[in-house]
Amino acid sequence: MMRFFKLLLAYDGTNFTGWQRQPKRRTVQGVLEKVLGEILQEKVLCKSSGRTDSGVHALAQVVAFESATRHSPEAITKALNAELPEDLFVFEVSEVTAEFHPIRDALRKRYRYVIQDGRVRDIFDRQYVWQVFRRLDVEAMQQAAKHLVGTHDFQSFESHGSSRLTTVRTIYDLLVERREGERTDRIYIEVEADGFLYNMVRNIAGTLMQIGKGNHPPDWPLEILAAKDRRVCGMTAPPQGLFLMWVEY
Amino acid sequence: MMRFFKLLLAYDGTNFTGWQRQPKRRTVQGVLEKVLGEILQEKVLCKSSGRTDSGVHALAQVVAFESATRHSPEAITKALNAELPEDLFVFEVSEVTAEFHPIRDALRKRYRYVIQDGRVRDIFDRQYVWQVFRRLDVEAMQQAAKHLVGTHDFQSFESHGSSRLTTVRTIYDLLVERREGERTDRIYIEVEADGFLYNMVRNIAGTLMQIGKGNHPPDWPLEILAAKDRRVCGMTAPPQGLFLMWVEY
Repeated sequence: MMRFFKLLLAYDGTNFTGWQRQPKRRTVQGVLEKVLGEILQEKVLCKSSGRTDSGVHALAQVVAFESATRHSPEAITKALNAELPEDLFVFEVSEVTAEFHPIRDALRKRYRYVIQDGRVRDIFDRQYVWQVFRRLDVEAMQQAAKHLVGTHDFQSFESHGSSRLTTVRTIYDLLVERREGERTDRIYIEVEADGFLYNMVRNIAGTLMQIGKGNHPPDWPLEILAAKDRRVCGMTAPPQGLFLMWVEY
Repeated sequence: MMRFFKLLLAYDGTNFTGWQRQPKRRTVQGVLEKVLGEILQEKVLCKSSGRTDSGVHALAQVVAFESATRHSPEAITKALNAELPEDLFVFEVSEVTAEFHPIRDALRKRYRYVIQDGRVRDIFDRQYVWQVFRRLDVEAMQQAAKHLVGTHDFQSFESHGSSRLTTVRTIYDLLVERREGERTDRIYIEVEADGFLYNMVRNIAGTLMQIGKGNHPPDWPLEILAAKDRRVCGMTAPPQGLFLMWVEY
């Protein structure tokens, strides 16, 4: 009898060519399916809540798979963490109904984008931040972010047109903050929405960065939204600063 | 005319076979000397305040070299940071007298050792902490650390006998703390001394870890010091949790 499972997965995207399985590439899906297949002694196919690009990280990606295994979810979790390479970690495996679909059923997602704005390169965090060698104006970025919250057509923030029915999305929260404490050269951007277009978070982060530099005014996002044209949008921030934080169902 | 320089260097030790130049290995000294040689158009030899092992990091290693260059220290710094790979960063190059010797003139050094004690593996920090999957008793570790502060014969804390004149060292400070905030599963051990024996910090960290686990009482260090025998000491902690913080001259 087939059983259906949901898996919560963290990955360091540095040494993966993104989520999606590809021949001869080390991908998250490829490694996970291989190890799951060995543990469960059957061919396993995984679906995630969405693809992530090469270099992008996940704090808690949601993955679904089915299997005829008799093992308990706890036993599968334990076996996975014993066998997976050290840049993957499974928090939890749980049983779900056959109806569960990780993309279709997702209600909200939250991403984090981390910028380091200082003249000193932090070599220990180079794979987890976007290093910008100039102090950014966080207040201008916060003002700009307000224009993006709510329901808008985000077509201008989508990298090359894919075949989506609509480019309207709702951003519930768009936080921009400089953390106090040890690392005052870190700016955290967190975006929560009902869905994301291709490269949308990286295009928002790049746009906000340019505003933080003073190259554009805080009202720039209004202009970009209105244009519905990718060419007027800011730059695409590089992948290594991006983390999928969680997915809500 | 020869000029003498001092250089402050950070390195992520993950992808280096330690500090010391070795044929066919990627070492910090090897990469630094190669890039310096290209920039200054002459053969450059570097000396550091001490060798670090494979996988060990430095927040501010001190390196000395001489050169006939006419370039300013600022120009050398800039050129270095443009050419060095992304796991090396130079904070500063300054001119010193011919007498300056990075080992002999060092008065104090401070190292940090980071332990992660939690059941959830932090994949993003795997190259910068020692992951111990059990909550440690920090108070017991702090009590134990007090026995090591001061002037003692640290022979038991030295890995395989090297040819030093004396194994007596003075520890000025030995801090053990669990940081508050986001990462409460991190224990920071910081040791400041007038000098260190081979693997001394890693042997102290391993010993304190075993005390934190409750395998030995907080008085154990007294016994180890008295024995003057490596075999009674605790385990050697792995290299990736170790950071050379600074050297004082």
